[in-house]
Amino acid sequence: MEHQVIFQPSGRRGRVKAGTTILEASRELGVEIESVCGAAKVCGKCVVKIETGYFEKFGIDSKTEHLSGLQEEEKEFLSPADVADNQRLACVAEINGDVLVFVPEESRGAKQVVLETGKERVFDLNPALQKYYVELEAATLEDHRGDLERLREALHQKYDLSDALAIDFYLLRDLPKIIRAGEWKVTVTIWDDREIVQVEPGLSENLYGLAVDVGTTTVAAYLCNLKTGATVMVDSMMNPQVRFGEDVLSRITYAMMNEDGLDKMHHAIIDGINTLAQRMTEKAGLVTADILEVTLVFNTAMHHIALNIEPKFVGRSPFAPGIKSSLDIKARDLGIRVNKAANVHALPVEAGFVGPDNVGVLIAEEPYKQREEIRLIIDIGTNGEIDLGNQDRMLCTSCATGPALEGAQIKFGMRAAPGAIEKVRVDHETLKVSYKVIGSEQWFPELKKTEARGICGSGIIDAIAEMFKAGIIEPSGRINMKLDSPRVRKGEDNKRPEFVLAWAGETSIGKDITITQGDVRAVQLAKAALYVGAKYLMEKLGVDKVDSVTLAGAFGNYIDRESAMVIGMFPDCDLTRVVAVGNAAGDGAKLALLNKNKRVEARQVAQMAEFVETAIEPDFQSRFVAAMGFPHSKDRFPHIQHILDGVKRPGKK
Amino acid sequence: MEHQVIFQPSGRRGRVKAGTTILEASRELGVEIESVCGAAKVCGKCVVKIETGYFEKFGIDSKTEHLSGLQEEEKEFLSPADVADNQRLACVAEINGDVLVFVPEESRGAKQVVLETGKERVFDLNPALQKYYVELEAATLEDHRGDLERLREALHQKYDLSDALAIDFYLLRDLPKIIRAGEWKVTVTIWDDREIVQVEPGLSENLYGLAVDVGTTTVAAYLCNLKTGATVMVDSMMNPQVRFGEDVLSRITYAMMNEDGLDKMHHAIIDGINTLAQRMTEKAGLVTADILEVTLVFNTAMHHIALNIEPKFVGRSPFAPGIKSSLDIKARDLGIRVNKAANVHALPVEAGFVGPDNVGVLIAEEPYKQREEIRLIIDIGTNGEIDLGNQDRMLCTSCATGPALEGAQIKFGMRAAPGAIEKVRVDHETLKVSYKVIGSEQWFPELKKTEARGICGSGIIDAIAEMFKAGIIEPSGRINMKLDSPRVRKGEDNKRPEFVLAWAGETSIGKDITITQGDVRAVQLAKAALYVGAKYLMEKLGVDKVDSVTLAGAFGNYIDRESAMVIGMFPDCDLTRVVAVGNAAGDGAKLALLNKNKRVEARQVAQMAEFVETAIEPDFQSRFVAAMGFPHSKDRFPHIQHILDGVKRPGKK
Repeated sequence: MEHQVIFQPSGRRGRVKAGTTILEASRELGVEIESVCGAAKVCGKCVVKIETGYFEKFGIDSKTEHLSGLQEEEKEFLSPADVADNQRLACVAEINGDVLVFVPEESRGAKQVVLETGKERVFDLNPALQKYYVELEAATLEDHRGDLERLREALHQKYDLSDALAIDFYLLRDLPKIIRAGEWKVTVTIWDDREIVQVEPGLSENLYGLAVDVGTTTVAAYLCNLKTGATVMVDSMMNPQVRFGEDVLSRITYAMMNEDGLDKMHHAIIDGINTLAQRMTEKAGLVTADILEVTLVFNTAMHHIALNIEPKFVGRSPFAPGIKSSLDIKARDLGIRVNKAANVHALPVEAGFVGPDNVGVLIAEEPYKQREEIRLIIDIGTNGEIDLGNQDRMLCTSCATGPALEGAQIKFGMRAAPGAIEKVRVDHETLKVSYKVIGSEQWFPELKKTEARGICGSGIIDAIAEMFKAGIIEPSGRINMKLDSPRVRKGEDNKRPEFVLAWAGETSIGKDITITQGDVRAVQLAKAALYVGAKYLMEKLGVDKVDSVTLAGAFGNYIDRESAMVIGMFPDCDLTRVVAVGNAAGDGAKLALLNKNKRVEARQVAQMAEFVETAIEPDFQSRFVAAMGFPHSKDRFPHIQHILDGVKRPGKK
Repeated sequence: MEHQVIFQPSGRRGRVKAGTTILEASRELGVEIESVCGAAKVCGKCVVKIETGYFEKFGIDSKTEHLSGLQEEEKEFLSPADVADNQRLACVAEINGDVLVFVPEESRGAKQVVLETGKERVFDLNPALQKYYVELEAATLEDHRGDLERLREALHQKYDLSDALAIDFYLLRDLPKIIRAGEWKVTVTIWDDREIVQVEPGLSENLYGLAVDVGTTTVAAYLCNLKTGATVMVDSMMNPQVRFGEDVLSRITYAMMNEDGLDKMHHAIIDGINTLAQRMTEKAGLVTADILEVTLVFNTAMHHIALNIEPKFVGRSPFAPGIKSSLDIKARDLGIRVNKAANVHALPVEAGFVGPDNVGVLIAEEPYKQREEIRLIIDIGTNGEIDLGNQDRMLCTSCATGPALEGAQIKFGMRAAPGAIEKVRVDHETLKVSYKVIGSEQWFPELKKTEARGICGSGIIDAIAEMFKAGIIEPSGRINMKLDSPRVRKGEDNKRPEFVLAWAGETSIGKDITITQGDVRAVQLAKAALYVGAKYLMEKLGVDKVDSVTLAGAFGNYIDRESAMVIGMFPDCDLTRVVAVGNAAGDGAKLALLNKNKRVEARQVAQMAEFVETAIEPDFQSRFVAAMGFPHSKDRFPHIQHILDGVKRPGKK
């Protein structure tokens, strides 16, 4: 038995089996609905609205009774008014008759805006691919060597390369034609001094590669010219796996709960990379076959899922990965459609939850080359990674920050996309808010009406730091309900405190955008995790202060470093020594593409870095609680003491 | 515009585009029609008959006018009576309307009977695949090594294997599951001491491989147990490429004349190998994934075509192959459906027309281990290969014998399949013929009526040797028309002499089966080529006699060695030192599968063997002409002089 389902505003429609949930139907029909928890019914992000009645235009009679009944889990997220408005959670409601489903803007997926310029980095251009031009002796009846043997011997004579070089099997198939098309003059591309991967007639200098940072949320790709070291083009897309769950654990769960779940997620990301490779080469006037190598970074779970390696055991204690070493895989074996002979290099894993992306951060930042200064590097993502040390010793850990700092699990949270409030200032006296929305250069209230529809990570950090400085949030994190301002109020649904950041009339969604008490708690959990992680590493290393702090992450250089320190995201440090470097993991992928010695460094640092398991420390819980306060219940922050001194406190005048 | 075409007796039917030849239509519809020349219109083997009229059963109105007009080329092969009988060449006649085509038995493909037991050979069992059982330490929070690293270290400790073993990427994907299914106890299969290709839970001793001899006409496959060295099963099939041309040159031509010709032929043979692998493992109670390695031999052109390597330049002077070295290819890259991680090992090429099959013959026969005796090895196929020498020096050459010795290009020639006359005796006085047909143990005339429908290679050699001994053929090769026997007569078509081997009433085709003057000439050309080739090698090596002769070939041990020497197929030798060893090339493939040292030997002998180009010698033509006589115009054959003395000669009493 099948029923018709139509999604609005996209207009996508189709027939699905009875019993299919609306979320499953959206996936089948290619409609993107947010699903942070991967249909575990715990995030409440997939709210949709059922339009009822007979729609002549579509020939559909849509009724709420065509869905399975309201479940307890939905009442956690839907107020009685929402229910009366025919709202449902897409992951719960099952389709048992024709329905017309409206996906509100907050529930829709949106194209990610990604940092496309990071820190300027100087590096040696020394790719794994090298080109060699040779002129061969033509075959004769007396000299009936094979074409490959003729090529090998010429390369050996002219360039002292091995006379037993391997050749990619697909390339070998065309070798006789290519050699003769070049009239015995060819340019040979050799990978890693051991395999012939391209032979072109005559002289050619084309040499391109692709570096890809597969983030949990965003995929960033860099098309590089390996002859010049130039980045020809940068592009990005939302990770297509997002529709299977927004964080790594929900994706691992999806893989475990669905027989073809791993396969589906694997293909989704490979398709995504193929889309990027296709559109970038096209824009650059190239073809995908021009890409001769691809480097990849990702966290450990994403590494396994992208490569279609069983991820189940990465997600459960003792968190042993399937492989830690770097991998060289034929692109064709992965399904990546670039040159058939191309290699895909996946950087190595460090430990269970510390993946190739952190290795990427390390080879980009090179803290292991630092002589004396102690560097603290924080890579902020759904999973946070922290590195501490210098050439003598490198410690690393990961912390479950949750997606709050990326704008998820926040009532009006959203990814850093157009419409997101990204910067916030609160007047200490009037509590009036000014803010800036992604997609516009002007601030509110300079701009009377904005496109605001939510708040992204940097906006949340700013908002909470500003609310704390203005006394709206107490050091404990509690919202001070005694303040005389209409912006501080009790929420409609659950009567818990909230602060109005933007009034309905200023926004594009016609609703007040607020920071709730729950949002503050989520940020407290995230920042406490990072802070405690950093402190454990400092103690393990035997230092009581760090000389510099580096904030990395796809959105890392939008972060206001003062706001970050004010909320206590990391231990005290000279503010001038706090730098945001953008997507250092992506830079690491690019460096590994452009300089093969970086792959050796990656292997070395992956082995050198000592993983510190913090969650099993006996005092973890008490430290964590202490770190929840703003900026911290006990620890002091001498470098921002002047700011903290100016904070309005209840009881202070 | 499309027309309906129906083939009888198979009943296959379908619609084809106007202008399609009957032969092309037969390929599209999966009907096998003989085509020795690959539709070059020169062999006349693809005769079909058009049935005319309205056939109610099929709803088809078949007319000869529905085909393109008779061409000059067809008149070469069709008598006026044949034309009146609506016979056409399938490669010429184009379909321009509905037709019902009858494929006469002589024109049909037939399942090949292949030698399934060769010489007994003793070898060391030492395959490239080895199994290792290990028990791993379980992962803990303190020991969070990756699964692969854990496995590598255990193998290194227990078996002193490299601690950086590669692993097949497809296997890696399932490694975490397999290891845990075995509760950290696994059996690991390692290929060539360098790549992990299989991991099984617990203890396993299964280890299988497949050796395949891809002959121009026949594909023979051997399923071997690599733990015991036993041949579990032997199977064979006609090479599915036969429908694109029966000899290598017509296939190379097909590849050159058709844009997707190479691809089609490549896929045809790969499909064939897959069919063999599937049905053999099924019969043996295994699955295809149990096959972990495949070894392949073939001639150079078949090597290129099977591997989808551009074959054009192998077929034209200076005959340089694309590659001579042996190749290790992932089965999945070739499209061979065995274990995904399996390796395919293709033996090396020696020279342009001396391919891996001859290398297979050499590593099976090991003439390079012979101390003093000089061995002559003749591998008879559509292309003949000759090797001569001992441990000091090995010479080799190839000769274009043509397919006559395999039963093609012979008026009633056919492959060694049921219905083929394979042994012949002619009474010297009465000229009565007795013969044996494949598929029956009894001889004619003991058996009054036979299933005879043609003559295969060994039958032709026997027939011509017997006709020569009975004086029916003169030493020049001319059929003696002065003999008083109804069996010696002028042919109906071209009035040229022929000898009736079997009368119509004895056969299954209702026609006299004859040896024509043209057939005798074809055999003379073939045997002269082999003889001259052997003599050149002897001169080049500086010997005037050989100590032994080895006859190899898929049909090599059916050959009557006395008949072969009587017609002068090779220089004089003690008849007791002439041996037929069957499919030595296939044995070589099997040995390379079972003993990896044989691959080293193969590489060495491919380099050691000196290729002698005979066709460019200035006296080639005169030698060739002299070798056309029976047994030879000049050279003497002391070891069979007693037989030659008994030959009836015109003018002798």
